[in-house]
Amino acid sequence: LAISKAELKKLASLKTKKGRGEQQRFLAGGVRVLEEALKFNFLPVKLLYSQSVISERGRILVNQFKTKKVQIIAVSSREMDAVADTETAQGIMGVFNFLETSLSKLYKPFFRRLLLCDRINDPGNLGTLVRSGLAFDFDMILVTDNSVELFNPKVVRSSAGAIFALPVTKVTYEELSEFKHSQNIKMAAAVSHRAGNENCFEIPQSLINEESSLILSIGSEAEGLSNAVLSLADYRVSIKHDAKVESLNAAVAGSILMHELFQKLKLKGAE
Amino acid sequence: LAISKAELKKLASLKTKKGRGEQQRFLAGGVRVLEEALKFNFLPVKLLYSQSVISERGRILVNQFKTKKVQIIAVSSREMDAVADTETAQGIMGVFNFLETSLSKLYKPFFRRLLLCDRINDPGNLGTLVRSGLAFDFDMILVTDNSVELFNPKVVRSSAGAIFALPVTKVTYEELSEFKHSQNIKMAAAVSHRAGNENCFEIPQSLINEESSLILSIGSEAEGLSNAVLSLADYRVSIKHDAKVESLNAAVAGSILMHELFQKLKLKGAE
Repeated sequence: LAISKAELKKLASLKTKKGRGEQQRFLAGGVRVLEEALKFNFLPVKLLYSQSVISERGRILVNQFKTKKVQIIAVSSREMDAVADTETAQGIMGVFNFLETSLSKLYKPFFRRLLLCDRINDPGNLGTLVRSGLAFDFDMILVTDNSVELFNPKVVRSSAGAIFALPVTKVTYEELSEFKHSQNIKMAAAVSHRAGNENCFEIPQSLINEESSLILSIGSEAEGLSNAVLSLADYRVSIKHDAKVESLNAAVAGSILMHELFQKLKLKGAE
Repeated sequence: LAISKAELKKLASLKTKKGRGEQQRFLAGGVRVLEEALKFNFLPVKLLYSQSVISERGRILVNQFKTKKVQIIAVSSREMDAVADTETAQGIMGVFNFLETSLSKLYKPFFRRLLLCDRINDPGNLGTLVRSGLAFDFDMILVTDNSVELFNPKVVRSSAGAIFALPVTKVTYEELSEFKHSQNIKMAAAVSHRAGNENCFEIPQSLINEESSLILSIGSEAEGLSNAVLSLADYRVSIKHDAKVESLNAAVAGSILMHELFQKLKLKGAE
Protein backbone atom coordinates (compact mmCIF):
# COMPACT_ATOMS: atom_id res chain seq x y z
CA LEU A 1 0.00 0.00 0.00
CA ALA A 2 1.37 3.40 -0.94
CA ILE A 3 0.50 6.70 0.67
CA SER A 4 -1.07 9.78 -0.92
CA LYS A 5 0.32 13.26 -0.43
CA ALA A 6 -2.89 14.31 1.27
CA GLU A 7 -2.71 11.49 3.74
CA LEU A 8 0.96 12.12 4.44
CA LYS A 9 0.14 15.74 5.19
CA LYS A 10 -2.63 14.69 7.54
CA LEU A 11 -0.27 12.36 9.39
CA ALA A 12 2.45 15.00 9.55
CA SER A 13 0.03 17.29 11.33
CA LEU A 14 -0.09 14.73 14.16
CA LYS A 15 3.32 16.07 15.12
CA THR A 16 1.52 19.11 16.52
CA LYS A 17 -0.75 19.22 19.54
CA LYS A 18 -3.42 20.92 17.44
CA GLY A 19 -3.33 18.17 14.81
CA ARG A 20 -3.55 15.46 17.44
CA GLY A 21 -6.51 17.16 19.08
CA GLU A 22 -8.37 17.55 15.79
CA GLN A 23 -7.83 13.97 14.65
CA GLN A 24 -7.85 12.41 18.13
CA ARG A 25 -4.86 10.39 17.08
CA PHE A 26 -1.19 10.28 17.97
CA LEU A 27 2.07 8.86 16.65
CA ALA A 28 4.35 6.37 18.35
CA GLY A 29 7.57 5.39 16.62
CA GLY A 30 10.47 3.08 17.25
CA VAL A 31 10.76 -0.67 17.59
CA ARG A 32 10.73 -0.82 21.35
CA VAL A 33 7.62 1.31 21.96
CA LEU A 34 5.71 -0.57 19.26
CA GLU A 35 6.76 -3.92 20.70
CA GLU A 36 5.22 -2.81 23.96
CA ALA A 37 2.05 -1.67 22.23
CA LEU A 38 1.76 -5.13 20.68
CA LYS A 39 2.52 -6.82 23.99
CA PHE A 40 -0.36 -4.95 25.64
CA ASN A 41 -2.50 -5.60 22.58
CA PHE A 42 -2.93 -1.93 21.84
CA LEU A 43 -3.03 -1.85 18.06
CA PRO A 44 -2.33 1.11 15.79
CA VAL A 45 -4.88 2.23 13.21
CA LYS A 46 -2.10 2.24 10.65
CA LEU A 47 1.52 1.24 10.68
CA LEU A 48 4.07 2.98 8.46
CA TYR A 49 7.42 1.46 7.75
CA SER A 50 10.35 2.35 5.59
CA GLN A 51 12.03 -0.61 3.89
CA SER A 52 15.38 1.12 3.59
CA VAL A 53 15.66 2.06 7.26
CA ILE A 54 13.94 -0.66 9.26
CA SER A 55 15.93 -3.29 11.17
CA GLU A 56 15.31 -7.04 11.18
CA ARG A 57 13.64 -6.72 14.58
CA GLY A 58 11.39 -4.03 13.13
CA ARG A 59 10.54 -6.20 10.13
CA ILE A 60 9.39 -9.01 12.42
CA LEU A 61 7.21 -6.51 14.25
CA VAL A 62 5.61 -5.33 10.98
CA ASN A 63 4.68 -8.93 10.22
CA GLN A 64 3.21 -9.42 13.68
CA PHE A 65 1.02 -6.35 13.26
CA LYS A 66 0.04 -7.61 9.82
CA THR A 67 -1.31 -10.85 11.30
CA LYS A 68 -3.33 -8.65 13.68
CA LYS A 69 -5.00 -7.06 10.63
CA VAL A 70 -3.36 -3.68 11.14
CA GLN A 71 -3.22 -1.57 7.96
CA ILE A 72 0.45 -1.60 6.89
CA ILE A 73 1.81 1.18 4.66
CA ALA A 74 5.25 1.09 3.06
CA VAL A 75 6.77 4.55 2.73
CA SER A 76 10.05 5.92 1.46
CA SER A 77 12.54 7.16 4.02
CA ARG A 78 11.75 10.69 2.85
CA GLU A 79 8.06 10.15 3.47
CA MET A 80 8.87 8.75 6.91
CA ASP A 81 10.92 11.87 7.63
CA ALA A 82 7.80 13.95 7.03
CA VAL A 83 5.98 12.36 9.96
CA ALA A 84 8.78 11.28 12.25
CA ASP A 85 12.08 12.08 13.78
CA THR A 86 14.09 9.47 11.85
CA GLU A 87 16.51 8.69 14.61
CA THR A 88 13.84 7.67 17.09
CA ALA A 89 11.39 6.15 14.59
CA GLN A 90 13.91 3.60 13.30
CA GLY A 91 11.84 3.20 10.15
CA ILE A 92 8.61 2.22 11.90
CA MET A 93 5.77 4.42 13.07
CA GLY A 94 2.31 3.62 14.42
CA VAL A 95 -0.74 5.85 14.19
CA PHE A 96 -2.94 5.30 17.25
CA ASN A 97 -6.36 6.49 18.29
CA PHE A 98 -6.31 8.52 21.49
CA LEU A 99 -6.45 6.31 24.54
CA GLU A 100 -9.33 6.66 26.94
CA THR A 101 -8.39 9.22 29.62
CA SER A 102 -11.60 9.67 31.54
CA LEU A 103 -11.16 9.04 35.25
CA SER A 104 -14.67 7.71 35.78
CA LYS A 105 -14.26 5.19 32.97
CA LEU A 106 -10.80 3.99 33.96
CA TYR A 107 -10.91 3.89 37.74
CA LYS A 108 -11.65 0.56 39.41
CA PRO A 109 -12.36 0.35 43.13
CA PHE A 110 -9.69 -2.32 43.60
CA PHE A 111 -6.90 0.07 42.56
CA ARG A 112 -4.47 0.52 45.46
CA ARG A 113 -1.63 2.73 44.24
CA LEU A 114 -2.29 5.87 42.20
CA LEU A 115 0.24 8.44 41.10
CA LEU A 116 -0.86 12.03 40.61
CA CYS A 117 1.34 14.14 38.30
CA ASP A 118 0.58 17.78 39.07
CA ARG A 119 1.48 20.31 36.33
CA ILE A 120 4.40 18.23 35.05
CA ASN A 121 5.49 20.12 31.95
CA ASP A 122 8.47 18.15 30.79
CA PRO A 123 7.33 15.32 28.48
CA GLY A 124 10.35 13.18 29.30
CA ASN A 125 9.56 13.39 33.01
CA LEU A 126 5.90 12.51 32.53
CA GLY A 127 6.72 9.50 30.35
CA THR A 128 9.38 8.31 32.79
CA LEU A 129 6.91 8.57 35.69
CA VAL A 130 4.40 6.42 33.79
CA ARG A 131 7.14 3.87 33.10
CA SER A 132 8.23 3.75 36.75
CA GLY A 133 4.58 3.57 37.82
CA LEU A 134 4.16 0.39 35.81
CA ALA A 135 7.45 -0.99 37.14
CA PHE A 136 6.47 -0.40 40.76
CA ASP A 137 2.97 -1.82 40.60
CA PHE A 138 1.01 1.40 40.50
CA ASP A 139 -2.51 0.90 39.15
CA MET A 140 -3.25 4.27 37.58
CA ILE A 141 -1.64 7.60 36.71
CA LEU A 142 -3.64 10.80 37.17
CA VAL A 143 -2.34 13.84 35.30
CA THR A 144 -3.65 17.34 35.99
CA ASP A 145 -4.95 19.05 32.90
CA ASN A 146 -2.36 21.83 33.16
CA SER A 147 0.43 19.29 32.59
CA VAL A 148 2.04 18.46 29.24
CA GLU A 149 -0.24 16.73 26.74
CA LEU A 150 -0.38 12.97 27.31
CA PHE A 151 0.09 12.03 23.66
CA ASN A 152 3.08 14.25 23.02
CA PRO A 153 5.54 11.94 21.17
CA LYS A 154 8.20 12.48 23.84
CA VAL A 155 5.80 11.36 26.55
CA VAL A 156 4.94 8.21 24.63
CA ARG A 157 8.58 7.48 23.83
CA SER A 158 9.95 8.05 27.34
CA SER A 159 7.17 5.90 28.79
CA ALA A 160 8.85 3.05 26.85
CA GLY A 161 5.37 1.85 25.96
CA ALA A 162 4.04 1.86 29.54
CA ILE A 163 1.40 4.36 28.43
CA PHE A 164 -0.24 1.47 26.57
CA ALA A 165 -0.32 -0.72 29.68
CA LEU A 166 -1.29 1.54 32.55
CA PRO A 167 -4.50 3.61 32.72
CA VAL A 168 -3.47 7.26 32.41
CA THR A 169 -6.20 9.83 33.05
CA LYS A 170 -6.49 13.56 32.76
CA VAL A 171 -8.12 15.40 35.68
CA THR A 172 -9.04 18.92 36.68
CA TYR A 173 -8.50 19.92 40.31
CA GLU A 174 -12.26 19.83 40.81
CA GLU A 175 -12.51 16.28 39.50
CA LEU A 176 -9.60 15.25 41.67
CA SER A 177 -11.14 16.67 44.82
CA GLU A 178 -14.52 15.14 44.09
CA PHE A 179 -12.85 11.78 43.28
CA LYS A 180 -10.74 11.71 46.41
CA HIS A 181 -13.69 12.49 48.65
CA SER A 182 -16.18 10.19 47.01
CA GLN A 183 -13.72 7.27 46.99
CA ASN A 184 -12.33 8.23 50.40
CA ILE A 185 -8.70 7.68 49.32
CA LYS A 186 -5.78 9.04 51.32
CA MET A 187 -3.30 11.27 49.55
CA ALA A 188 0.41 11.82 50.20
CA ALA A 189 2.10 14.94 48.81
CA ALA A 190 5.77 14.80 47.87
CA VAL A 191 7.37 18.01 49.09
CA SER A 192 10.89 19.36 48.93
CA HIS A 193 13.23 18.11 51.59
CA ARG A 194 14.44 21.67 52.03
CA ALA A 195 11.10 23.25 52.86
CA GLY A 196 11.49 22.25 56.49
CA ASN A 197 10.14 18.77 55.85
CA GLU A 198 12.90 16.96 57.60
CA ASN A 199 11.11 13.73 58.23
CA CYS A 200 11.48 11.47 55.30
CA PHE A 201 8.67 9.06 54.78
CA GLU A 202 5.67 9.86 56.88
CA ILE A 203 2.98 7.69 55.36
CA PRO A 204 1.67 5.71 58.33
CA GLN A 205 2.74 2.08 58.36
CA SER A 206 -0.90 1.17 58.65
CA LEU A 207 -1.45 2.46 55.12
CA ILE A 208 1.37 0.44 53.62
CA ASN A 209 -0.46 -2.77 52.95
CA GLU A 210 -2.23 -4.43 50.08
CA GLU A 211 -5.66 -3.28 51.22
CA SER A 212 -5.19 0.48 51.62
CA SER A 213 -5.45 2.83 48.70
CA LEU A 214 -3.13 5.77 48.35
CA ILE A 215 -2.58 8.61 45.89
CA LEU A 216 1.05 9.75 45.72
CA SER A 217 1.36 13.30 44.34
CA ILE A 218 4.37 14.69 42.49
CA GLY A 219 4.63 18.33 41.44
CA SER A 220 6.60 20.16 38.81
CA GLU A 221 10.25 20.90 39.42
CA ALA A 222 9.94 24.62 39.00
CA GLU A 223 6.81 25.16 41.05
CA GLY A 224 6.22 22.08 43.20
CA LEU A 225 2.71 20.95 43.99
CA SER A 226 -0.18 23.35 43.47
CA ASN A 227 -2.09 24.62 46.47
CA ALA A 228 -5.12 22.74 45.19
CA VAL A 229 -3.27 19.46 45.65
CA LEU A 230 -1.46 20.40 48.86
CA SER A 231 -4.75 21.27 50.50
CA LEU A 232 -6.14 17.83 49.62
CA ALA A 233 -3.14 15.92 51.00
CA ASP A 234 -3.40 13.85 54.18
CA TYR A 235 0.36 13.33 54.50
CA ARG A 236 3.55 14.93 53.30
CA VAL A 237 6.53 12.91 52.23
CA SER A 238 10.00 14.00 51.24
CA ILE A 239 13.27 12.48 50.16
CA LYS A 240 16.32 13.35 52.19
CA HIS A 241 19.23 14.61 50.16
CA ASP A 242 22.27 16.79 50.50
CA ALA A 243 21.55 20.52 50.68
CA LYS A 244 24.01 21.16 47.83
CA VAL A 245 21.18 20.55 45.38
CA GLU A 246 17.98 22.54 45.39
CA SER A 247 15.78 19.62 44.41
CA LEU A 248 15.73 16.32 42.57
CA ASN A 249 14.48 15.79 39.05
CA ALA A 250 10.69 15.26 39.26
CA ALA A 251 10.76 11.86 37.56
CA VAL A 252 13.59 10.73 39.84
CA ALA A 253 11.81 11.92 42.98
CA GLY A 254 8.52 10.26 42.00
CA SER A 255 10.29 7.05 41.05
CA ILE A 256 12.23 6.89 44.33
CA LEU A 257 9.00 7.30 46.32
CA MET A 258 7.15 4.72 44.22
CA HIS A 259 10.09 2.33 44.67
CA GLU A 260 10.00 2.88 48.44
CA LEU A 261 6.31 2.02 48.58
CA PHE A 262 6.84 -1.00 46.33
CA GLN A 263 9.72 -2.22 48.45
CA LYS A 264 7.87 -1.73 51.73
CA LEU A 265 4.90 -3.63 50.40
CA LYS A 266 7.18 -6.48 49.32
CA LEU A 267 8.81 -6.54 52.75
CA LYS A 268 5.41 -6.55 54.42
CA GLY A 269 4.29 -9.35 52.17
CA ALA A 270 7.32 -11.43 53.13
CA GLU A 271 6.79 -10.96 56.87
CA LEU B 1 29.14 46.03 25.24
CA ALA B 2 27.77 44.99 21.86
CA ILE B 3 28.66 41.89 19.90
CA SER B 4 30.19 41.58 16.44
CA LYS B 5 28.76 39.31 13.76
CA ALA B 6 31.98 37.32 13.74
CA GLU B 7 31.84 36.73 17.46
CA LEU B 8 28.17 35.76 17.33
CA LYS B 9 28.97 33.23 14.66
CA LYS B 10 31.77 31.83 16.77
CA LEU B 11 29.46 31.48 19.75
CA ALA B 12 26.71 29.91 17.64
CA SER B 13 29.16 27.19 16.61
CA LEU B 14 29.32 26.18 20.29
CA LYS B 15 25.92 24.62 19.70
CA THR B 16 27.72 21.83 17.86
CA LYS B 17 30.03 19.24 19.35
CA LYS B 18 32.65 20.12 16.75
CA GLY B 19 32.54 23.81 17.68
CA ARG B 20 32.83 23.04 21.37
CA GLY B 21 35.78 20.76 20.77
CA GLU B 22 37.60 23.35 18.67
CA GLN B 23 37.06 26.23 21.08
CA GLN B 24 37.17 24.11 24.25
CA ARG B 25 34.18 26.09 25.46
CA PHE B 26 30.49 25.36 26.06
CA LEU B 27 27.25 27.22 26.60
CA ALA B 28 25.00 27.09 29.64
CA GLY B 29 21.77 29.04 29.59
CA GLY B 30 18.87 29.71 31.92
CA VAL B 31 18.59 31.42 35.27
CA ARG B 32 18.70 28.31 37.40
CA VAL B 33 21.79 26.70 35.90
CA LEU B 34 23.67 30.00 36.01
CA GLU B 35 22.66 30.59 39.63
CA GLU B 36 24.23 27.22 40.42
CA ALA B 37 27.38 28.10 38.48
CA LEU B 38 27.66 31.27 40.57
CA LYS B 39 26.97 29.38 43.79
CA PHE B 40 29.85 27.01 43.06
CA ASN B 41 31.95 29.96 41.92
CA PHE B 42 32.34 28.61 38.45
CA LEU B 43 32.40 31.77 36.36
CA PRO B 44 31.68 32.09 32.64
CA VAL B 45 34.20 33.67 30.30
CA LYS B 46 31.39 35.85 28.94
CA LEU B 47 27.75 36.32 29.87
CA LEU B 48 25.18 37.25 27.22
CA TYR B 49 21.82 38.64 28.19
CA SER B 50 18.86 39.96 26.30
CA GLN B 51 17.17 42.94 27.96
CA SER B 52 13.80 42.27 26.36
CA VAL B 53 13.57 38.65 27.52
CA ILE B 54 15.34 38.43 30.87
CA SER B 55 13.40 38.19 34.15
CA GLU B 56 14.03 40.20 37.29
CA ARG B 57 15.74 37.18 38.82
CA GLY B 58 17.96 36.97 35.72
CA ARG B 59 18.78 40.66 35.96
CA ILE B 60 19.97 40.24 39.54
CA LEU B 61 22.16 37.38 38.37
CA VAL B 62 23.71 39.53 35.62
CA ASN B 63 24.66 42.10 38.24
CA GLN B 64 26.16 39.45 40.48
CA PHE B 65 28.34 38.19 37.64
CA LYS B 66 29.28 41.79 36.86
CA THR B 67 30.68 42.26 40.38
CA LYS B 68 32.72 39.10 39.78
CA LYS B 69 34.34 40.85 36.77
CA VAL B 70 32.68 38.58 34.21
CA GLN B 71 32.49 40.16 30.75
CA ILE B 72 28.81 41.06 30.24
CA ILE B 73 27.41 41.45 26.71
CA ALA B 74 23.93 42.82 25.98
CA VAL B 75 22.40 41.24 22.89
CA SER B 76 19.09 41.54 21.10
CA SER B 77 16.61 38.71 21.44
CA ARG B 78 17.37 37.82 17.81
CA GLU B 79 21.08 37.61 18.55
CA MET B 80 20.31 35.45 21.60
CA ASP B 81 18.27 33.15 19.36
CA ALA B 82 21.36 32.57 17.24
CA VAL B 83 23.21 30.97 20.13
CA ALA B 84 20.43 29.60 22.30
CA ASP B 85 17.15 27.83 22.49
CA THR B 86 15.14 30.85 23.69
CA GLU B 87 12.76 28.92 25.87
CA THR B 88 15.46 27.37 27.99
CA ALA B 89 17.91 30.29 27.92
CA GLN B 90 15.39 32.74 29.42
CA GLY B 91 17.43 35.64 28.05
CA ILE B 92 20.67 34.72 29.77
CA MET B 93 23.53 32.59 28.49
CA GLY B 94 27.01 31.90 29.84
CA VAL B 95 30.04 30.90 27.80
CA PHE B 96 32.28 28.63 29.85
CA ASN B 97 35.70 27.14 29.37
CA PHE B 98 35.65 23.35 29.37
CA LEU B 99 35.85 21.95 32.87
CA GLU B 100 38.75 19.75 33.84
CA THR B 101 37.83 16.11 33.11
CA SER B 102 41.06 14.27 33.72
CA LEU B 103 40.66 11.46 36.24
CA SER B 104 44.18 11.74 37.59
CA LYS B 105 43.75 15.46 38.23
CA LEU B 106 40.30 15.25 39.81
CA TYR B 107 40.45 12.11 41.92
CA LYS B 108 41.22 12.47 45.61
CA PRO B 109 41.99 9.45 47.78
CA PHE B 110 39.34 10.48 50.31
CA PHE B 111 36.51 10.05 47.78
CA ARG B 112 34.12 7.36 48.96
CA ARG B 113 31.26 7.17 46.48
CA LEU B 114 31.87 7.22 42.74
CA LEU B 115 29.32 6.76 39.99
CA LEU B 116 30.39 5.26 36.69
CA CYS B 117 28.17 6.06 33.70
CA ASP B 118 28.91 3.48 31.03
CA ARG B 119 27.97 4.44 27.44
CA ILE B 120 25.04 6.62 28.54
CA ASN B 121 23.91 8.21 25.29
CA ASP B 122 20.92 10.24 26.37
CA PRO B 123 22.07 13.70 27.50
CA GLY B 124 19.06 14.15 29.79
CA ASN B 125 19.89 10.90 31.58
CA LEU B 126 23.55 11.79 32.03
CA GLY B 127 22.72 15.25 33.40
CA THR B 128 20.10 13.82 35.75
CA LEU B 129 22.59 11.24 37.06
CA VAL B 130 25.09 14.01 37.83
CA ARG B 131 22.35 15.94 39.66
CA SER B 132 21.30 12.90 41.71
CA GLY B 133 24.96 12.13 42.40
CA LEU B 134 25.40 15.53 44.00
CA ALA B 135 22.11 15.11 45.91
CA PHE B 136 23.13 11.75 47.36
CA ASP B 137 26.67 12.68 48.42
CA PHE B 138 28.58 11.03 45.62
CA ASP B 139 32.08 12.46 45.29
CA MET B 140 32.80 12.02 41.61
CA ILE B 141 31.17 10.94 38.35
CA LEU B 142 33.15 8.86 35.86
CA VAL B 143 31.82 8.80 32.31
CA THR B 144 33.11 6.34 29.72
CA ASP B 145 34.38 8.04 26.60
CA ASN B 146 31.77 6.32 24.40
CA SER B 147 28.98 8.17 26.28
CA VAL B 148 27.34 11.41 25.20
CA GLU B 149 29.61 14.47 25.29
CA LEU B 150 29.79 16.00 28.78
CA PHE B 151 29.29 19.58 27.64
CA ASN B 152 26.27 18.93 25.45
CA PRO B 153 23.80 21.71 26.42
CA LYS B 154 21.16 19.15 27.44
CA VAL B 155 23.60 17.45 29.81
CA VAL B 156 24.45 20.78 31.43
CA ARG B 157 20.80 21.83 31.67
CA SER B 158 19.48 18.57 33.06
CA SER B 159 22.28 18.50 35.62
CA ALA B 160 20.61 21.65 37.01
CA GLY B 161 24.09 23.07 37.50
CA ALA B 162 25.42 20.02 39.41
CA ILE B 163 28.05 19.65 36.69
CA PHE B 164 29.69 22.78 38.13
CA ALA B 165 29.81 21.31 41.62
CA LEU B 166 30.80 17.69 41.23
CA PRO B 167 34.00 16.45 39.55
CA VAL B 168 32.96 14.77 36.31
CA THR B 169 35.67 12.86 34.45
CA LYS B 170 35.96 11.11 31.14
CA VAL B 171 37.60 7.67 31.12
CA THR B 172 38.50 4.94 28.68
CA TYR B 173 37.97 1.36 29.80
CA GLU B 174 41.75 0.99 30.08
CA GLU B 175 42.02 4.01 32.38
CA LEU B 176 39.12 2.71 34.45
CA SER B 177 40.69 -0.71 34.91
CA GLU B 178 44.06 0.76 35.77
CA PHE B 179 42.42 3.23 38.19
CA LYS B 180 40.33 0.60 39.96
CA HIS B 181 43.30 -1.70 40.47
CA SER B 182 45.80 0.94 41.50
CA GLN B 183 43.36 2.49 43.99
CA ASN B 184 41.99 -0.89 45.03
CA ILE B 185 38.36 0.29 44.95
CA LYS B 186 35.44 -2.15 44.90
CA MET B 187 32.92 -1.85 42.09
CA ALA B 188 29.22 -2.72 42.00
CA ALA B 189 27.50 -3.22 38.65
CA ALA B 190 23.81 -2.38 38.29
CA VAL B 191 22.22 -5.15 36.26
CA SER B 192 18.70 -5.74 35.06
CA HIS B 193 16.37 -7.34 37.54
CA ARG B 194 15.19 -9.63 34.78
CA ALA B 195 18.53 -11.14 33.88
CA GLY B 196 18.21 -13.68 36.66
CA ASN B 197 19.52 -11.27 39.26
CA GLU B 198 16.77 -11.77 41.74
CA ASN B 199 18.57 -10.55 44.79
CA CYS B 200 18.21 -6.87 45.17
CA PHE B 201 21.01 -5.15 46.95
CA GLU B 202 24.02 -7.37 47.32
CA ILE B 203 26.70 -4.90 48.31
CA PRO B 204 28.07 -6.33 51.55
CA GLN B 205 27.02 -4.38 54.63
CA SER B 206 30.69 -4.12 55.54
CA LEU B 207 31.18 -1.84 52.54
CA ILE B 208 28.35 0.49 53.46
CA ASN B 209 30.19 2.78 55.80
CA GLU B 210 31.96 6.10 55.64
CA GLU B 211 35.38 4.51 55.26
CA SER B 212 34.90 2.18 52.31
CA SER B 213 35.13 3.37 48.73
CA LEU B 214 32.78 2.09 46.09
CA ILE B 215 32.19 2.65 42.39
CA LEU B 216 28.55 2.17 41.38
CA SER B 217 28.21 1.44 37.63
CA ILE B 218 25.17 2.23 35.49
CA GLY B 219 24.89 1.16 31.88
CA SER B 220 22.88 2.39 28.93
CA GLU B 221 19.22 1.45 28.66
CA ALA B 222 19.53 -0.18 25.29
CA GLU B 223 22.66 -2.17 25.90
CA GLY B 224 23.28 -2.35 29.65
CA LEU B 225 26.81 -2.39 31.00
CA SER B 226 29.67 -3.22 28.67
CA ASN B 227 31.61 -6.43 29.19
CA ALA B 228 34.65 -4.32 30.04
CA VAL B 229 32.80 -2.95 33.08
CA LEU B 230 31.03 -6.18 34.04
CA SER B 231 34.34 -8.02 34.14
CA LEU B 232 35.73 -5.42 36.56
CA ALA B 233 32.76 -5.58 38.95
CA ASP B 234 33.06 -7.15 42.40
CA TYR B 235 29.30 -7.17 43.05
CA ARG B 236 26.10 -7.02 41.07
CA VAL B 237 23.10 -5.05 42.23
CA SER B 238 19.63 -4.83 40.80
CA ILE B 239 16.34 -3.11 41.56
CA LYS B 240 13.30 -5.31 41.95
CA HIS B 241 10.39 -4.28 39.81
CA ASP B 242 7.34 -5.75 38.18
CA ALA B 243 8.03 -7.91 35.12
CA LYS B 244 5.55 -5.85 33.08
CA VAL B 245 8.36 -3.43 32.27
CA GLU B 246 11.55 -4.49 30.56
CA SER B 247 13.75 -2.09 32.48
CA LEU B 248 13.80 1.23 34.29
CA ASN B 249 15.01 4.49 32.83
CA ALA B 250 18.81 4.61 33.34
CA ALA B 251 18.73 7.88 35.32
CA VAL B 252 15.93 6.54 37.53
CA ALA B 253 17.75 3.25 38.17
CA GLY B 254 21.03 4.99 39.01
CA SER B 255 19.26 7.49 41.24
CA ILE B 256 17.37 4.80 43.16
CA LEU B 257 20.61 2.92 43.84
CA MET B 258 22.46 6.09 44.88
CA HIS B 259 19.53 6.97 47.16
CA GLU B 260 19.66 3.49 48.73
CA LEU B 261 23.36 3.85 49.48
CA PHE B 262 22.82 7.38 50.83
CA GLN B 263 19.98 6.21 53.05
CA LYS B 264 21.85 3.17 54.35
CA LEU B 265 24.84 5.33 55.21
CA LYS B 266 22.56 7.77 57.08
CA LEU B 267 20.97 4.91 58.98
CA LYS B 268 24.38 3.50 59.83
CA GLY B 269 25.52 6.91 60.99
CA ALA B 270 22.50 7.20 63.28
CA GLU B 271 23.02 3.81 64.91
